[in-house]
Amino acid sequence: MSNIKKKAVLLLSGGLDSATVLAMANAQGYVCYALSFDYGQKHRSELEAAKKIADVLGAVEHQTLHLDLNVFGGSALTDNSIEVPVNQHNDSEIPLTYVPARNTIFLSMALAWAEVLQADDIFIGVNAVDYSGYPDCRPDYIKAYEKMANLATKAGVEGHHLRVHTPLINMSKAQIIQAGINAGVDYRLTVSCYAADKQGKACGQCDSCRLRRKGFADAGVEDPTIYR
Amino acid sequence: MSNIKKKAVLLLSGGLDSATVLAMANAQGYVCYALSFDYGQKHRSELEAAKKIADVLGAVEHQTLHLDLNVFGGSALTDNSIEVPVNQHNDSEIPLTYVPARNTIFLSMALAWAEVLQADDIFIGVNAVDYSGYPDCRPDYIKAYEKMANLATKAGVEGHHLRVHTPLINMSKAQIIQAGINAGVDYRLTVSCYAADKQGKACGQCDSCRLRRKGFADAGVEDPTIYR
Repeated sequence: MSNIKKKAVLLLSGGLDSATVLAMANAQGYVCYALSFDYGQKHRSELEAAKKIADVLGAVEHQTLHLDLNVFGGSALTDNSIEVPVNQHNDSEIPLTYVPARNTIFLSMALAWAEVLQADDIFIGVNAVDYSGYPDCRPDYIKAYEKMANLATKAGVEGHHLRVHTPLINMSKAQIIQAGINAGVDYRLTVSCYAADKQGKACGQCDSCRLRRKGFADAGVEDPTIYR
Repeated sequence: MSNIKKKAVLLLSGGLDSATVLAMANAQGYVCYALSFDYGQKHRSELEAAKKIADVLGAVEHQTLHLDLNVFGGSALTDNSIEVPVNQHNDSEIPLTYVPARNTIFLSMALAWAEVLQADDIFIGVNAVDYSGYPDCRPDYIKAYEKMANLATKAGVEGHHLRVHTPLINMSKAQIIQAGINAGVDYRLTVSCYAADKQGKACGQCDSCRLRRKGFADAGVEDPTIYR
């Protein structure tokens, strides 16, 4: 392996999964450029969390971009006319918290930055096991995205290969938490709750809170989440 | 064919190509939702042009979204440290005016809106003939994007098919102009110049001006462009 560290662009939400991915990418020797989005999400305290996580885990640069996704609406996370559901999770349905095309938009912004940085690696903390209701978390989707990305950019023309890394895609929440703790993630810094208040305190009832709580229990690790 | 008009989301730049696509989509019976982006482009007068074109050609709705692409830089169109080149066009190179991942980002925002509108059709005025230097104007790229888009969204899960229409992809500039004139496009409203001034007056020298001027000449149509 070359001694020159490789640059990577990493999507950082402020939640548990992407913080774990940042620690894993660091451990693999990547120089990480972290990217967050202010897209009109109701749980805006995750942006403050992302800033702290980027700093504590040593991202070389962190950008938070504004995105007008609330103009379109259509999701409980961005549309004030749709409430964040409690106990809605049902494997056969796409949850109300699904934000149309969100991962595609986020990956595309990461792709732009990667191209400018001449980075061939993008990291995203999608997971297909514990939360299979979002179409844009499936392995087939990521594969198709990577193929498209190589045709979209100079990478394809210049003959190097751009990779979308999804280290969590086949892990359970408990496995993710174990991996993160091994890599030194302080999960007190992360905010998962879809209805987190301004201080980042969690509701304990939304799908994201329930999955997170169950993850800590299954991992046999004390839950550091601050509930309100 | 059903009498219920189908909704389509259409990327509208304010230039000649996308105005032509809007007229073509109208003629095919689509109800068009036009989408433009304020992405830090130096030629911002194209946004005023887009607004007028959407109005005159009867888009049912027109949104202009803000995108922080100038944060990344890397293109003569958005980065103040790179000048818009004159006579740079060279088939073997990617031009300095290429904006990293721009079409992928624009299409992804269109995809989000399409999903909220429950529209299965997206129109984009890319062209692979007259301007083959941009990787994200190639037919293979569009095909890969469409495949990815169907996996990214509810479309794939619910079993309907999302299509990315590129009616101009194999047309010459002269053919595009002829088609637009047949469909009633007033090209005086369009701004193509990469260095257009605030009034939309064109420089006459950048790649985009030269292609446009040649297009009118080849089509045997008087060039309505206002040069400064």
